[in-house]
Amino acid sequence: MAALPVTPALATPVRKVACAAVPDVPHATWSQALVLANEVVMSGQTAGAAAQQAAAAGTPMDAYQQALVCLRRLQALVEAAGGGVHNIVKLTLYLTDIADREAVGRARRDFFADALPGALFPASTLVAVSALVQPELRVEVDAIARLDADLRQAVLATA
Amino acid sequence: MAALPVTPALATPVRKVACAAVPDVPHATWSQALVLANEVVMSGQTAGAAAQQAAAAGTPMDAYQQALVCLRRLQALVEAAGGGVHNIVKLTLYLTDIADREAVGRARRDFFADALPGALFPASTLVAVSALVQPELRVEVDAIARLDADLRQAVLATA
Amino acid sequence: MAALPVTPALATPVRKVACAAVPDVPHATWSQALVLANEVVMSGQTAGAAAQQAAAAGTPMDAYQQALVCLRRLQALVEAAGGGVHNIVKLTLYLTDIADREAVGRARRDFFADALPGALFPASTLVAVSALVQPELRVEVDAIARLDADLRQAVLATA
Repeated sequence: MAALPVTPALATPVRKVACAAVPDVPHATWSQALVLANEVVMSGQTAGAAAQQAAAAGTPMDAYQQALVCLRRLQALVEAAGGGVHNIVKLTLYLTDIADREAVGRARRDFFADALPGALFPASTLVAVSALVQPELRVEVDAIARLDADLRQAVLATA
Repeated sequence: MAALPVTPALATPVRKVACAAVPDVPHATWSQALVLANEVVMSGQTAGAAAQQAAAAGTPMDAYQQALVCLRRLQALVEAAGGGVHNIVKLTLYLTDIADREAVGRARRDFFADALPGALFPASTLVAVSALVQPELRVEVDAIARLDADLRQAVLATA
Repeated sequence: MAALPVTPALATPVRKVACAAVPDVPHATWSQALVLANEVVMSGQTAGAAAQQAAAAGTPMDAYQQALVCLRRLQALVEAAGGGVHNIVKLTLYLTDIADREAVGRARRDFFADALPGALFPASTLVAVSALVQPELRVEVDAIARLDADLRQAVLATA
């Protein structure tokens, strides 16, 4: 079968982001964040070590607290990539208990309300899954950011 | 540590889409759809209020009916963004019961067969989750659309 | 309400990828892979028929083996699109048993270590779901690839 006539693509510079607030896990088999020109591709974030320590201390973090940690870690990655909260365009939230959805929604509101005026939020999908990577985790948040898209400049388009 | 040498990005205009068929929920902490130049980033859609009313009336919507509502809501958002069904390039389907997968596949076929000739469909991922945001929901559908990509014009490339 | 003033978009050529290693399922209502200029949009991959045959033969595939099959299928699709493993920028892994996460992480390491020097990996999100499309499946892997982004050329950016 013939090879595909692929148009030679202009190479996009790829950056792997490292930042102190979201350190790479030793022997990790994933990148926390990759920047492809304007697109920031991130790994899903959890409250990880902080949630583990809190659970071990007998004061487990609730879903609201965990969601804030996840969102702040995503923020740190986007800032390390050269952007900010206003560049986050999509969230996918995975909860282990759907009863946490209001607490997580509250965390999302509190987090974005400061950075984005006019009740502008990223698009968002929320489902409950059967487990996350550690038993004490109640929420994981995945996100996509675009350094060239600033939600503070968004125009409302009514069809 | 040094700041990143970020190439100044040309700003991409951002539009938040509003349409009568997929109204914003009061106090929502998400956008139903954002348009970033050619890319339509959407929130996962469910049969929401319609499924709630049907359940309350003792005639719950089945997975086939719910999937069609989800897909029509995505269609309304893409049309409000200036595109159509032929611009939907990826679906992620979350079911609460994997036994519904054939019914949901049938809904997907019935929905796209009208708009897309030649058995052309978006790429698609389907998993069962433990819960969606309301107990009567059987399916949620997430999607990505590209206004510059028309599936009706797709060329088959065999490697 | 007024129609949106949509900027006419330059049409992006769309290719539907077909390859012998990842054949289209008869009557499938999804595309295995679509290429939109530089972006490869793929359907989630499973060990599918191979896992079914192994289970029927009384020698079910474990999570490590299944994950490798998923990753090799994604590789075949990206290669058919004109790229390679180094173009895979994001993975989403769905497991049916979170206890498999180390085995799946090992498969991810073994798979990418050959192709990508310097411990460079795609961004990655991993959750456990309640079911996949066939009962013998333990893992499904979704991926995004960018033909213009080569992870072997990635630069570490420390903020």
